[in-house]
Amino acid sequence: MQKISNFKEFTEVTPDAVMAADTHGGRAKCLQRLVRLDLPVPLTVSLPFDTVGRIAAGHSPDTAALLAVFGALPLVSVRPSSQDQQWGGPGALLNVGMNARQHAHLRNTHGDQAADALYLRFIQAYAVDVARLDPDIFDDPEISSAAVARALVLFEEEAETPFPQDPAVQLAEVLRSMARAWDSTSARLLRQARGAPNGAGLGLVVQRMALGFGPGESGSGVMQFINPVTGAPRIHGRYLRQSMFRDALLAPEDALFLRSDPRGPALEDVANAAFAELTQAGAICRQRLREEMEIEFTLENGQLHVLDAVRAARSTRAGLSAAVALAKDRVISEQEAVLRVAPQALAEMLHPQVDHAASRDVIARGIAGSPGGATGRLVFSAAAAQTSAAQGEPCILIRRETMPEDIRGMHVAQGILTERGGMTSHAAVIARGLGLPCVVGATGLRLSTRKKTLGTADGRVLREGDLVTLDGTSGELLAGEAPMMEPALDDSFHALMGWADEARDIGVRANADTLAEAQTARAFAAEGIGLCRTEHMFFDDVRMGVMREMIFADKSGDRQRALDRLLPMQRNDFVDMFRAMEGLPVTIRLFDPPLHEFLPSDREGLREMAERLDLPLSEVTRRVEAMTEFNPMLGLRGVRLGVTLPEIYNMQARAIFEATVEVGKAAPKVVPEIMIPLVTARREVELVKTRIEAVAAAVQNETGAELDFRVGVMVETPRAALRAGEIAGHSAFLSFGTNDLTQMTYGLSRDDAGRFMGTYVSEGVYPEDPFHRLDQDGVGELLLLGAERGRRARPELTLSICGEHAGDPSAIAFCRAAGFDYVSCSPFRVPIARLAAAHLALDARELPRETFESDVP
Amino acid sequence: MQKISNFKEFTEVTPDAVMAADTHGGRAKCLQRLVRLDLPVPLTVSLPFDTVGRIAAGHSPDTAALLAVFGALPLVSVRPSSQDQQWGGPGALLNVGMNARQHAHLRNTHGDQAADALYLRFIQAYAVDVARLDPDIFDDPEISSAAVARALVLFEEEAETPFPQDPAVQLAEVLRSMARAWDSTSARLLRQARGAPNGAGLGLVVQRMALGFGPGESGSGVMQFINPVTGAPRIHGRYLRQSMFRDALLAPEDALFLRSDPRGPALEDVANAAFAELTQAGAICRQRLREEMEIEFTLENGQLHVLDAVRAARSTRAGLSAAVALAKDRVISEQEAVLRVAPQALAEMLHPQVDHAASRDVIARGIAGSPGGATGRLVFSAAAAQTSAAQGEPCILIRRETMPEDIRGMHVAQGILTERGGMTSHAAVIARGLGLPCVVGATGLRLSTRKKTLGTADGRVLREGDLVTLDGTSGELLAGEAPMMEPALDDSFHALMGWADEARDIGVRANADTLAEAQTARAFAAEGIGLCRTEHMFFDDVRMGVMREMIFADKSGDRQRALDRLLPMQRNDFVDMFRAMEGLPVTIRLFDPPLHEFLPSDREGLREMAERLDLPLSEVTRRVEAMTEFNPMLGLRGVRLGVTLPEIYNMQARAIFEATVEVGKAAPKVVPEIMIPLVTARREVELVKTRIEAVAAAVQNETGAELDFRVGVMVETPRAALRAGEIAGHSAFLSFGTNDLTQMTYGLSRDDAGRFMGTYVSEGVYPEDPFHRLDQDGVGELLLLGAERGRRARPELTLSICGEHAGDPSAIAFCRAAGFDYVSCSPFRVPIARLAAAHLALDARELPRETFESDVP
Repeated sequence: MQKISNFKEFTEVTPDAVMAADTHGGRAKCLQRLVRLDLPVPLTVSLPFDTVGRIAAGHSPDTAALLAVFGALPLVSVRPSSQDQQWGGPGALLNVGMNARQHAHLRNTHGDQAADALYLRFIQAYAVDVARLDPDIFDDPEISSAAVARALVLFEEEAETPFPQDPAVQLAEVLRSMARAWDSTSARLLRQARGAPNGAGLGLVVQRMALGFGPGESGSGVMQFINPVTGAPRIHGRYLRQSMFRDALLAPEDALFLRSDPRGPALEDVANAAFAELTQAGAICRQRLREEMEIEFTLENGQLHVLDAVRAARSTRAGLSAAVALAKDRVISEQEAVLRVAPQALAEMLHPQVDHAASRDVIARGIAGSPGGATGRLVFSAAAAQTSAAQGEPCILIRRETMPEDIRGMHVAQGILTERGGMTSHAAVIARGLGLPCVVGATGLRLSTRKKTLGTADGRVLREGDLVTLDGTSGELLAGEAPMMEPALDDSFHALMGWADEARDIGVRANADTLAEAQTARAFAAEGIGLCRTEHMFFDDVRMGVMREMIFADKSGDRQRALDRLLPMQRNDFVDMFRAMEGLPVTIRLFDPPLHEFLPSDREGLREMAERLDLPLSEVTRRVEAMTEFNPMLGLRGVRLGVTLPEIYNMQARAIFEATVEVGKAAPKVVPEIMIPLVTARREVELVKTRIEAVAAAVQNETGAELDFRVGVMVETPRAALRAGEIAGHSAFLSFGTNDLTQMTYGLSRDDAGRFMGTYVSEGVYPEDPFHRLDQDGVGELLLLGAERGRRARPELTLSICGEHAGDPSAIAFCRAAGFDYVSCSPFRVPIARLAAAHLALDARELPRETFESDVP
Repeated sequence: MQKISNFKEFTEVTPDAVMAADTHGGRAKCLQRLVRLDLPVPLTVSLPFDTVGRIAAGHSPDTAALLAVFGALPLVSVRPSSQDQQWGGPGALLNVGMNARQHAHLRNTHGDQAADALYLRFIQAYAVDVARLDPDIFDDPEISSAAVARALVLFEEEAETPFPQDPAVQLAEVLRSMARAWDSTSARLLRQARGAPNGAGLGLVVQRMALGFGPGESGSGVMQFINPVTGAPRIHGRYLRQSMFRDALLAPEDALFLRSDPRGPALEDVANAAFAELTQAGAICRQRLREEMEIEFTLENGQLHVLDAVRAARSTRAGLSAAVALAKDRVISEQEAVLRVAPQALAEMLHPQVDHAASRDVIARGIAGSPGGATGRLVFSAAAAQTSAAQGEPCILIRRETMPEDIRGMHVAQGILTERGGMTSHAAVIARGLGLPCVVGATGLRLSTRKKTLGTADGRVLREGDLVTLDGTSGELLAGEAPMMEPALDDSFHALMGWADEARDIGVRANADTLAEAQTARAFAAEGIGLCRTEHMFFDDVRMGVMREMIFADKSGDRQRALDRLLPMQRNDFVDMFRAMEGLPVTIRLFDPPLHEFLPSDREGLREMAERLDLPLSEVTRRVEAMTEFNPMLGLRGVRLGVTLPEIYNMQARAIFEATVEVGKAAPKVVPEIMIPLVTARREVELVKTRIEAVAAAVQNETGAELDFRVGVMVETPRAALRAGEIAGHSAFLSFGTNDLTQMTYGLSRDDAGRFMGTYVSEGVYPEDPFHRLDQDGVGELLLLGAERGRRARPELTLSICGEHAGDPSAIAFCRAAGFDYVSCSPFRVPIARLAAAHLALDARELPRETFESDVP
């Protein structure tokens, strides 16, 4: 077998060595940087990806030559160095080079106990990780020469070969074992799941062992410089005397801490000079590597060795806080701080969360429909939720699915779980808007809303009133109360979002139907409301009754009388909205759902309605049945109602204009945007627009006020996208409702997709649930066609999306590339959208994306 | 006012005059042709559109100069001459020129009685039509000089001006009155409804009166040469002595007929020479004008005058028969015969029809869902229909709407009426497939299927068993039994369709789900089956039970056992289909509907099913409820079932292949085409196709037969059309299902559209119901995109449409232009599609479209 020449096979890590993360791995590169910063790094040799790849394929490296670098009596560690440390790799192997000769030498220099311990550790690790022997054989706790002798005999018996005494042989075997482990199927799947490309390589670093055993102050530990939960500056860490490597982490009860730490004695006290050197090293790293690092160190008879430094683990909140602090200290730019926070990760900062560390008694699993955690008593109906709320009892609402009539219950519940539905089912959409945790499509439970019980897969039966915790982030329902972590929208958060807003070049509005949602939207600095669904305003008791009278009116005059009673209520809704938004644009979608959503479906509700309307039950039942639709999604709703029953839209237009006049007297001028839903043809827009203009003229006449308003179209049908050219001729704006557009492009109801979407995604039929991630190939083409045709007909046309996708960074990227003016998402996704948009703008500027990788090159 | 010079204002109709139908009108042009054929046409002057337009605008024509053509004592008629006689026009005005002088002259030449009658008629007509006086004033039945004197006084009293004695004044007033009548709103709307363009002009012809009054054999009449119902050659007509113009038509009891006609004495006997001359004129017209004409004539003292000849009115059947006869006699070409029959008109030949002439007791009106007429007893359920059929009693099935479970009842009923739904509702689609009359979306009735009563708008209540007649052509339900006309698919029909097939260049297949439909398709010469919906095969009692077992199976094994029982039944279905089609292609669509369509929805059905499956009722109810979908159209159906429950498609593929082998042994080789429904992504096709190929390989292995088959895709979702390029990579054919594609492009369920489609069409929001007429702008663009992308990826790709639109000539034109290979429509529309396709091909060839207009130029 041909030997690879030495200078290719490995590189000594010196300030001038030619090394890069994509040839030698991230750990090797980082060690070189520490060397350049003059930190006391033990002598290190790096094996690049190429060499390790060849070793895995069968080549034998010249380990003797490699070990020659470490002198006559080498004692080294071997650690993995993949390109991205997130991708994992085989565990470190320490003390390579331990043999009888080294053992004898160490008994002299470090004493019997340390020498025996080191030899025993190596025999054990080699036996298990390299020779693949049974770990149980080597579990003798005794540390002595006799134990070493027994271990060597045991090894020979089990491995049927003597324990290798030649350090070159030991190292060759260790390298081969680690190279092969990297190629195993499980390791490959694991790193691919973490985003590694197919041919990701492994580097290895061989480093002189700094021994934490022996005379003087010897030991090992790790030190960090920020609080991993909050990101606040805080020096902390652990140190264990007479230990090596990361032993301190495994035995915290014996570890030394900071002086202020109540858990135990302090490193600061026992090794003050080393402590000072370490804090100094942390500061240098922060300044020069431009990141908060965790330093892994060993004290060898009082002398500090820095074995490694890695990016300190942290929560999203801590990461955001650290990035902002680095920017404020001018270590990194504000833009870089923005780029360092992943938009999606913000979600966990915006809501209370179930503590990750807490133990969990999971009783049901489903789709994580809306993030956050909440504890409350089980209720099985909107009415029970309202009763519970009236008694000041938090509750979790469980339904087979939710309907618009459940809205009141959803508003007062602390969390919602449904048995059916997917990411964009009614429950999930509403919950995200309200910022409530929600789990949908929950499987493995037997729900009886009649008996008010919830049976679990393991045979338990929960009843109304039982305490549960809903985790909308993980998609789980837990028994009992679980510990929570509260959201933290602190100064750092606001500073970062401010920088993000300076960077981004596409607008972000919120979908908000209620005053509370509008206020949340403002708190998250949405630049307006992109979608205000007016129908949700009709679900309180009084209005529902009047709505039903309106729906049952036989004559236009009766219908008008019911609508006249709704008018002042609607006007107040809009007054509240406009005031909350302080002059920012508010896009109001005219009434959209089928009228039968406002009618009861159960016998009791029908009887109640018959009484109220003073009609025979049979008549009410007959008419409710006659209004039932086979496919409500594809029925008499949206502009179809507007065209066939003009009184409803006329009332809404009047309410909008009267509110505009009222609010405009005091606050900044309001320019309402009126959006027509479910359009399929130009003529629908013409008809409705003409009527709206007539109402505007009447209100102007009555009030003497000048009205300024815009009428536009919600593009939800493929036809509206295809005919966007002629529709834009009558529209100031087009807003793509990608929920409905996805439904119609796929012929797939979001409420019914849950039953097979799992199979579809797992079989790779769809790469992702198209209701969750915008389908750029199909639905996206309609967006592009619609945008292009609309703008060609009317260059000043405002373009936006307002479906659930609007909060997703990939959809925002798509819309930005297509020249859209803004995206409109649920209020709690506004910060995520703002940050994602900033990332896109900064990426597009091709700023030198400086990370700690590139500063100490 | 400037006078228009004479030579422009009017033209004497001579063989050499410069005249055309689009300047002088069809009547004027036809009269010129009769003159050229040397028929005895009285002297005629034509006023072109220009002149009449100016008259309407206020110009006064030089009527004195015009009348000078007719000599010193002019007596003329004035008749309208629009470009197309279908467009209507003002009524004829006769006897212009009657005044005291003419009266005196006629008393000498024709006797007092005739002279008085003519003068009275003119005064009366002039008073009513020109001076716009009340007709009641002139209703004196007496004919005498005294009556004439009274009429003149009455006129002067009412009109406050003497009756004009100057023929030039009379004519000027008549012309002005007729010109203005043409410009009235009602006349304009009427002709526009008949297809006239906006600026359609009116010409007028002024003709010397041939008087049917007076000495010798004098009178007037009309003569035709074909039976207007059958088209068979038959000389017939009416003649009334001492009458003028079309009087004979108003008084048939006094008319003379043919010698063989039992209704009365014969013209042949009283005026043999004139009769001979007339039959000769008919023959000349047929030969030279190349059309069967109706001749309007007057005998004046035994001498024949031909006043006019128009295309003889006729039924579609008669028109077809006449066209074929003309072609067989080599008067016109076969292609021209094909072009003379309107494809849509064929519908009335293919089904029995309620006699147009019969009186009708209409009890409900709705949308004409499927043409034809039938009488039977009212039934309100599929079961009652089956009972009625078992007793040999014809029945009409009335349902609120039909479901797949009603299929058996629909198959045995004579007609179907539903309260809900539109042109493409389940009931209408199935009925058209079966060739049954059907009315859908019937309004004005109160249906109680429980009480089995049908209340009508006028307060009648019909009960089960009452006799009714359904007219699917007019969309009416009639009380009692109405007289019927039987369909006539005679030799002429077959000859014409043969010529059509020679001409056309796009294929026509049929949608057929049953053996009976396949046989109808063959009888109508479909070139194959373009859509065989397999799910309809599962609705008989035995299969339904097994289907339910399959649906309720918890494990794949149980499901397989149920499917194993369905396999031989399905195989037989396909054996029957293949045998019926004798080697023609059969496109089988794999199972498409949601499974819950096979489950009962009422309590009784659930209980029965629970017994059969030996499960508790609560369990069955719970599972049926859990399978219910919000929007079944957009749920778990089509290929989604195929992907998630592969056993169903595997069974169907096996049934298809085993049937292929079995039939292939004797008959011509079968190449089945397997179509995958509701595709949205390439991967769905890959997955299902791979499984189908595996089944094919297994069947080949077991039988040793060579299998040849094609797998393709039904394009029903906008996404499939958009992604046709990558889908075509795995498809031998794409067939556009335009029903579903329209639903999804519009976001509009065909079953729910009925509630507002009327308003939408009447308000011009949609020019037509898009389920009735293919929406070329929206859905059409998806067809074009899909076709173009599919063909680019696979040039040999077969393209077709198989939605309900496929039978519509405008959709066929669209598909032909887009390069489609065939259309597939319901069997009873196959002849219409064949003929429409022939028209398109012939139009495209730009044949000299010879009609009788152009032969005698």
